[in-house]
Amino acid sequence: MQRVRQLLVSLAAAVAVGSAAVGFVLRWVLHYKEGLGWDGGPAEFNWHPVLVVIGLVFLQGVAITVYRIPWTWTCSKLRMKFIHAGLNVLAFALTVTSLVAVFDFHNAQRIPNMYSLHSWVGLAAVLLYALQLVLGLVVYLVPITPGNLRAAFMPVHIYSGIFIFATVIATTLMGITEKLIFGLRDPPYRDSPPEAVLVNVLGLLVIVFAGLVVWIVTRPSWKRPGENVPQTLSSGDNSNTATNMSLRDRGGKTEPK
Amino acid sequence: MQRVRQLLVSLAAAVAVGSAAVGFVLRWVLHYKEGLGWDGGPAEFNWHPVLVVIGLVFLQGVAITVYRIPWTWTCSKLRMKFIHAGLNVLAFALTVTSLVAVFDFHNAQRIPNMYSLHSWVGLAAVLLYALQLVLGLVVYLVPITPGNLRAAFMPVHIYSGIFIFATVIATTLMGITEKLIFGLRDPPYRDSPPEAVLVNVLGLLVIVFAGLVVWIVTRPSWKRPGENVPQTLSSGDNSNTATNMSLRDRGGKTEPK
Repeated sequence: MQRVRQLLVSLAAAVAVGSAAVGFVLRWVLHYKEGLGWDGGPAEFNWHPVLVVIGLVFLQGVAITVYRIPWTWTCSKLRMKFIHAGLNVLAFALTVTSLVAVFDFHNAQRIPNMYSLHSWVGLAAVLLYALQLVLGLVVYLVPITPGNLRAAFMPVHIYSGIFIFATVIATTLMGITEKLIFGLRDPPYRDSPPEAVLVNVLGLLVIVFAGLVVWIVTRPSWKRPGENVPQTLSSGDNSNTATNMSLRDRGGKTEPK
Repeated sequence: MQRVRQLLVSLAAAVAVGSAAVGFVLRWVLHYKEGLGWDGGPAEFNWHPVLVVIGLVFLQGVAITVYRIPWTWTCSKLRMKFIHAGLNVLAFALTVTSLVAVFDFHNAQRIPNMYSLHSWVGLAAVLLYALQLVLGLVVYLVPITPGNLRAAFMPVHIYSGIFIFATVIATTLMGITEKLIFGLRDPPYRDSPPEAVLVNVLGLLVIVFAGLVVWIVTRPSWKRPGENVPQTLSSGDNSNTATNMSLRDRGGKTEPK
């Protein structure tokens, strides 16, 4: 019970901090910037931070932790896989839209594309995210994929999911840095106007949100029941594969992947 | 044997990529920028990226993975703890020097301190790193600290170590972004001059290095022998604590922490 209470507190904190980040990015573009539009101008650019924070940051964070939500533990594993995949597909769709917005804006304003470290890392992260989605769907949702392949791939799936998420966070922080330097002129960023403080705090919220997501998803005892073997046999495991392998070694049963 | 070979390849790749990053940052400041000096000018600032990449990125990465180097597995655990702590103390000393350089430069040039997201996150990361060092020394190197406290703290020590390392990487990427925008004028960053490409590649190297370090340190089967229980009992564990607890539960013995 203590275990579930700590998990719930962590989940609630993650949702609160992630929602605050979404609120901060909306406040930024709607109050301090030009609002939202689709006209090749700054209002179209503004979809980029908004959709990235909602999709790649918040929704991807929720997708990563969704198996840890205790209310879902009575749902079938297959349904949870569809929810995990569905949230990631939605996040990916928002991301693609956010990229269209920024390329449109750059082209309309004759600003070169793909010159900054932000753009290099961001595009690499989105391509890896697409690959992760396709491989995840093929390996875990195509019924004929053999169980041993699913098990063997799980450590890579988990690691690359967290790696891509961390890379997205770093890219967001670079994007914030760029936009505050380019977008704040009078007063400039170095004079710390209210907009700069608000967006710096947005950056901190994004980091804290990511820290909570990774903490939640790497606590062995907070796993969905049925993925865990008893603590005395195998405690402290980040890899479903390994747990299931150790169960199999002992002739135990686990939920099908 | 296959396990050790894969570990060695990963370690070699990490050292190669980390060394390349150090080479790239030196090439940046010595060839494209003003070199190194201690005069309140740009050459003093240049110590900041150099010492951060050598200390907070490369040495911290080595410190994190040092228990995984197979040649150290015959050394006593206590000696390895001193090496782990010593590398982190050295990285911290380089970091403090790098901060003195940048504050000195800002003050001499009348540039405000601590206005950017880079500076906020960077200072927070350095303060957390100091706290991590102090707590690590007290908990794991003061002989009277009880074993159960050491075990209970280990998941936090591991998680916060990786979290701080990831935050340092994100801060480095923000710092690169700032410096390329401010430092490149003719031609500017958006025109992708050779310096911009070199430093963008430095950013990618830093990310790949971090990805390798975290991959190495989170593979359960690559742990220092004596920290692992046999695969059939507990495989796939990122937490020494948990492993040792499961060993203890079974009446097993492990190396003292």
